[in-house]
Formats: sequence, C-alpha cells, structure tokens
Amino acid sequence: MKILVSEVGPRDGLQSITSIMPLEAKKRWVEAEAAAGVTEIEVGSFVPAKLLPQLADTAELVRFARTIPGLTVAVLVPNLKGAEAAVEAGAHKITIPLSASETHSLKNVRRTHAQMLDEVKSIVTLLNGLPIDRRPKFEGGLSTAFGCTLEGVVPRDRVVALAEALMSAGCDEVGLSDTTGYANPAQVRDLVRQVRAAVGDHALTGLHLHNTRGLGLANVLAGLEVGITTFDSSLGGLGGCPFAPGASGNIVTEDLVFMLEAMGLHTGIDLQKLIEVRRIVRDALPSEDLYGFTPDAGLPLGFVQESKL
Amino acid sequence: MKILVSEVGPRDGLQSITSIMPLEAKKRWVEAEAAAGVTEIEVGSFVPAKLLPQLADTAELVRFARTIPGLTVAVLVPNLKGAEAAVEAGAHKITIPLSASETHSLKNVRRTHAQMLDEVKSIVTLLNGLPIDRRPKFEGGLSTAFGCTLEGVVPRDRVVALAEALMSAGCDEVGLSDTTGYANPAQVRDLVRQVRAAVGDHALTGLHLHNTRGLGLANVLAGLEVGITTFDSSLGGLGGCPFAPGASGNIVTEDLVFMLEAMGLHTGIDLQKLIEVRRIVRDALPSEDLYGFTPDAGLPLGFVQESKL
Repeated sequence: MKILVSEVGPRDGLQSITSIMPLEAKKRWVEAEAAAGVTEIEVGSFVPAKLLPQLADTAELVRFARTIPGLTVAVLVPNLKGAEAAVEAGAHKITIPLSASETHSLKNVRRTHAQMLDEVKSIVTLLNGLPIDRRPKFEGGLSTAFGCTLEGVVPRDRVVALAEALMSAGCDEVGLSDTTGYANPAQVRDLVRQVRAAVGDHALTGLHLHNTRGLGLANVLAGLEVGITTFDSSLGGLGGCPFAPGASGNIVTEDLVFMLEAMGLHTGIDLQKLIEVRRIVRDALPSEDLYGFTPDAGLPLGFVQESKL
Repeated sequence: MKILVSEVGPRDGLQSITSIMPLEAKKRWVEAEAAAGVTEIEVGSFVPAKLLPQLADTAELVRFARTIPGLTVAVLVPNLKGAEAAVEAGAHKITIPLSASETHSLKNVRRTHAQMLDEVKSIVTLLNGLPIDRRPKFEGGLSTAFGCTLEGVVPRDRVVALAEALMSAGCDEVGLSDTTGYANPAQVRDLVRQVRAAVGDHALTGLHLHNTRGLGLANVLAGLEVGITTFDSSLGGLGGCPFAPGASGNIVTEDLVFMLEAMGLHTGIDLQKLIEVRRIVRDALPSEDLYGFTPDAGLPLGFVQESKL
C-alpha cells in the first residue's frame, strides 16, 4: 500500500524556531527532499511577515517549488488574504487551520468558529472563480482535535460537527491535527472513525501528529489501522524538542518513513537519501537541534527497502 | 483490561551504564516504584560480579524486594549457577536469555543454542526438585528475536523453533526481546502470532521492546493488538540514549504507562507517583541522563487516569 508522507518542516518546523533559514537553503532543502522521493511539501504559510519573519519568503519558495516535477506544493493560510497570496504564487494545495478549541482559536487567530467558517466560505468563493487548472486543493485542518492546552478535553462531537461544517462550507477535505501532543492510539482510531462516518472516508485521509509525549508513531499506527493514508511530519523533527516552550514536536520524517517502509508500506522515499537531507538543514541552522532516532541509530543490518527491490 | 508493566531498569538499565548505584538507592527505587503501583520488577542479574559490578548486590536486593507486599521479584540468570543463586535468594521469577542469533549467543555467553538448551534443562531439574512454594516461575527470553546487529535478519521460523524448544525443555513461558531495536509493528504482530500458534497463547504473554529507532510504543500497540499483556520497560529509559555505544534503549516506563492509561487500559500504576520516582534515580546517578517525553511535557490538561476514578 502507498502512504503519502507530507513534509511540513519548512512550515511547521521553521515557524517554531527563531532562527531564519535563508531562502537559498530552503530551496536546497525542498529540492533535496523531493529528490529523495517526497511528493508533497508544505513550504510555508501566508501570514504577515511581521508575525512570522521566518516564513516571509513563502511566495518565492512556492514559485521555486512549483518547478520541481511531481511535487505537490502546499501552504498554510490563516484567512482569505493568505489564500489570495497562495493562489497568486501558484500553490497546489492550501490548508486553513480551524482550532476545535474556540479558546485556542480566539487566542491564535482572534476569531470564533463562526468567523473562521465565514473565512472558509470566502476562500471557497475565491477558488470557485478560478479556472480549473489553477484551482488549488483546499483542506480544512482541525487543530487541537485531540485536546487543548487551554481547554483540556475537546469533546469528540464538536470535532465531528466542525468537520461537517468545513465540508459544508466547501472544503475538499478535512485533516485532524494533534497540535498539543495529547492524542493516544485509542482516541485516534475512535475520532477518525467518527469523523469519517460523518463526512465520508474520502474526506478524511490525513493526520498531523506530534510526538510531545512520545506516542507519535503509535498514533500513526492507529491511524493506518483505520484507513489513514497521509501523515504530516518534519525532517529532523525541526521545530524542536517537544517540551521546549513553543516547540511543535512534529513526528520525525526519518523515523516515520523507517517505520512505514519496515512494515512493507511504500512511501516512494529513499531512506538513505532522506537522511542525507539533514545535512542541508544542519548547515543552514547550526544552532538548532535536530531529532530522530533512526538517523542516529542507523538502519538495521540487512535492512532493504521493499519498495526499492 | 489489565496490562502488566514489568520494570527492568534496576537490571537492564543499570547493567548498561558504568556508574554503580548504591544498594540503598536501589532499595529506595524499588520500594517507591512498588508504592506507585508497579507489581513486577526485575531487580538484577546473577552474573559474576567481575563481569557486572553494577549488579553485584542482586542477592541482597532480591531479599529486600521480597519483603514488599504484592511485588513479584524477577531476576535474570545466564546459567544454572545463576539460577541456584536466584533460588537461594528467593526470586519469584527467573528469566534465562536465549539469543535467537547463535552468533550473538556465542559472543554474549559463549554458548551455542544446544548448550543453552542444556542449561535450561538443568535449571528445570533444579526447579522441579524444589517445594512448590519455593519454585520460581521460569521464563525463556528469546533475545535478538527481531534481528541481530551481527547476523542481520533472524528468520522467523528459527525464533518459533527456539520458542518450542524452550517450552519442551520445561520453561513455564517464553518472551520475545527486541534487543537491537530492529522490530517494526508488522513484524511484532506476525512473530507473536506465529510463536503463539506454536506454543499456545498462555506461553507467550510478554514483550521486551527497545526504542532504538523510535518505534518502541508503536511496537507495544502492535503487541496489544495480538494479545500481549506484559511489557518490559525502564524508568527514565535508564541505560541511556538508544544510540550511544552499549546503551540498551529500553522503552520508557513513564511514556508506556501514559499511553496505556490514556487508552483506558489499566496498569494499576499512579502516573504522578511514578514520575516522582525519577528523583531517586537522578539523585543516585547524577551523571546519567534520564529519558522520556511525558515527564518533561507533563500530563495533558484535564487528564484523569480512568483506573483511579
């Protein structure tokens, strides 16, 4: 079975650190990871440069990444203005985050659920006015779907209702994000099943998981068991130590790909080449820590990627 | 469902570091972890003190641990002589490791598979001569069951055959150990199923997993799915960084218990009290690193252990 590993390091990783990676290094990173076989990369976020100077060059990076054959170039947008910029730059996929915790939504983007859903509808209107070959895929990403550091438990029914609202508003699909690293495998199975029952299997194929409490790959396994085929991850776990303040704690692309390939699932990614991409990130960000067990431990003796046979 | 978390830090953790923990600190550790609800602890190994001076006080620690009500006191023994010492000290459970990789067995204990099975039979004869109330439970632990750093791939059929041989030789049960951190969830499910089909479900209930490549808890989840109910782990991941030379890379007890309890499985262990036990280990071994994501990240807001309700 083919699994899509969606690299989010250039967006989620870089936005979580204070160092700014030069555009040329970002280009080398995206190019090398695509050459290793990664077919979808979230290269940035269209937010005001004064809020996230790390991602101020997103438009230029999108234009560059579009020149790489076979690569789906994804970006995050917080609102209609961001979506306009994403369309202008030519992104293939745009994701708008909607926090299942309204407290978190208000704090993060100063908008209620209703206001965010209005924003989603405006974006859909924008997209529907585009010629079909310029229309990016549009995902609603439900953040804090597994719990919130401000509200605590997020009721499952609320997540299901918001997923339905996003689809009704015109999203092409929804995703579930464990923004806080609260998810456990039983909850992943349950929430995915419930949301799929409400919006249809085709409308939920992706999970964005963190490793804040060490359960990231166990949660991936739970997701696989209920039909999830797309997983976000960050090369070198960039964005940092999951327990450092402000750190994202994304699951590590290298460990994720190792697990999937070892299980006989096909990612299309060459593990050895993927691990070599770390050097580009390390050279460009010498003061940032990189994470991941597999790169340090090395591949098992005699390990052969089935997909390369 | 009740899951048995078997703490192996005082044996597998301490044997992997060069610092020697004083006996009094070991006693405090074992006592505090039992008070947190841990009901089985592997407190040491009966090997010559010149080989593992860290564990030279195992007999004294066994005698102390036996005084803790409700605690199963486990030890590792490499041979008949070790088993005699374990019986003399009063261990409730003894485990003899048998490496599925004969190369590893020869290097580790300088014995072939046939020689190790003879040793097992000698131990069974010893145990069968004991009065029933002094007879410890006897497990054959199949190490390198998921692959070997010397041989690479270890054929599944060999592991199954050795499990059958251990049971035929008189072991009460077998366990599977991912000594090298090579296991993946698909392999865990498959090997557990195959071994159980050969020796019976009752004869394989436990897994000893490492987190060397970050897949430790995903492998636990896979084990749960095929009926495994006992998991070994080490408090603070003691024994170290999985990729440092000689490090064991045991899965971390705190993260394991968090995952199980979050999933609604009952360990009987109070997570907050468990996390506090780290202080004893840290104070006694100030130069050793402790691991684990959950202790640093903290428990999720609003998290309540169902088993404590």
